[in-house]
Amino acid sequence: MSEYSQFETLIPVRPDDIDMNLHVHNSRYYDYVIAARYEQMERCYNMSMEAFLERGFSWFARSAYIEHKRSLHLGDVAVVRTQIEELRSRGVKVWFEIHKQSDEKLAARGWFDYAMVSIETGRPQTIPSDIVEKYSI
Amino acid sequence: MSEYSQFETLIPVRPDDIDMNLHVHNSRYYDYVIAARYEQMERCYNMSMEAFLERGFSWFARSAYIEHKRSLHLGDVAVVRTQIEELRSRGVKVWFEIHKQSDEKLAARGWFDYAMVSIETGRPQTIPSDIVEKYSI
Amino acid sequence: MSEYSQFETLIPVRPDDIDMNLHVHNSRYYDYVIAARYEQMERCYNMSMEAFLERGFSWFARSAYIEHKRSLHLGDVAVVRTQIEELRSRGVKVWFEIHKQSDEKLAARGWFDYAMVSIETGRPQTIPSDIVEKYSI
Amino acid sequence: MSEYSQFETLIPVRPDDIDMNLHVHNSRYYDYVIAARYEQMERCYNMSMEAFLERGFSWFARSAYIEHKRSLHLGDVAVVRTQIEELRSRGVKVWFEIHKQSDEKLAARGWFDYAMVSIETGRPQTIPSDIVEKYSI
Repeated sequence: MSEYSQFETLIPVRPDDIDMNLHVHNSRYYDYVIAARYEQMERCYNMSMEAFLERGFSWFARSAYIEHKRSLHLGDVAVVRTQIEELRSRGVKVWFEIHKQSDEKLAARGWFDYAMVSIETGRPQTIPSDIVEKYSI
Repeated sequence: MSEYSQFETLIPVRPDDIDMNLHVHNSRYYDYVIAARYEQMERCYNMSMEAFLERGFSWFARSAYIEHKRSLHLGDVAVVRTQIEELRSRGVKVWFEIHKQSDEKLAARGWFDYAMVSIETGRPQTIPSDIVEKYSI
Repeated sequence: MSEYSQFETLIPVRPDDIDMNLHVHNSRYYDYVIAARYEQMERCYNMSMEAFLERGFSWFARSAYIEHKRSLHLGDVAVVRTQIEELRSRGVKVWFEIHKQSDEKLAARGWFDYAMVSIETGRPQTIPSDIVEKYSI
Repeated sequence: MSEYSQFETLIPVRPDDIDMNLHVHNSRYYDYVIAARYEQMERCYNMSMEAFLERGFSWFARSAYIEHKRSLHLGDVAVVRTQIEELRSRGVKVWFEIHKQSDEKLAARGWFDYAMVSIETGRPQTIPSDIVEKYSI
């Protein structure tokens, strides 16, 4: 298991998230994870995405994997748990699970692999040590 | 002013709501109002959209109007206030305002005009008296 | 009727446009009109949105109105027709109609009222005469 | 390499696909692949999603993987190529690549793993032989 902390964010399902299959549209699960990470960057890592961008950095999603287990529906609240799985010199792999709040059943799980990039050049950057420290909780 | 009650729902801005102008995408304001109304149908009118659909009814948006005043941004929470402006035998006009939670400034306002329709036929229906009563608060 | 030219853009409905009512999500009609205008700015007015932004200008939607007539469904192609209704010193009112390509039936119609703004300050600007000329066709 | 045919669909980028990073929002790449597969089901496999649903079947995405290589931007057209990688008794793994039309550079690639399910029960189904045949091109 990962040595890093696990964080949790609640995302209420909105009607515009529901697709013609009458459940949350598959690609919205990624949006829920991103929304959770943004909220956690500020609240848990003490460095908001805005502060990140001001330093000239951004995260580029190099790859992502997801397994869908059960669908979320109108009225549900998604519990999004994330955790750093691997912290590399130039990137980070983030594990996630999405549960349905009402019965705690697993809706989806997977991971994102991010590279830290310069906004200016778009090229990969070594993560500065103060940011490594913030993320090492 | 309207004789009907005003209700309020908080919608946190998600990163996927932000467009290339770096503020909440214009058409998402409609989605915020719909999300607020769904939440209020259940909590304030005691008749969830699901209950509505089970009775064979749905709301068809015949027309909508919006004025954009100030943009909402990443990290903002939208305060969506809605109020019935007019309750007709076959429809309802709903007024809305969207404020930014942090400074209470007006982001947008407008209205939706809905017809009650039969799910089966898609045709306009007279709103049953028990539903008129629920909405007359 | 308006003295300005009418332009037409085809927008194929995508599965992610369909909502739980099994037709194109209401707020996506706005996105179809915006997509049509972007395409027409380049093809019909000879000034792409990118060129617009490079000059330091952007359009701010002050208000919008829409009437929904018939729904668009999976597999449909939307025919989006737009036309300038009014060209003011600091803004433009754009009329639109959306038809279903297969039977030419009206799906929705309405208008957008845009102010020209400075990207830098966000404040309204007088439309430069060369741009007025481009839009006066 | 796969023994199955490769198919191609063009998806024009819409302004509402662009996010605050000024390129196509990551999760929209999935939507582009789904849009391509729907179009190809009808045009290439001679069995539209509607025909599929009428037979009481649907596809459930069990898992998906994506690698992002280069971003797509406003004005780009996505060339979505898909190909069956594996056809199992109860599911199918679909490979995809998304290229930018103007320079043919790779934007993203990955796969979806689908299970065929009954709409009624949501449970996995053996793919009927006539559908296996349609997909074996």
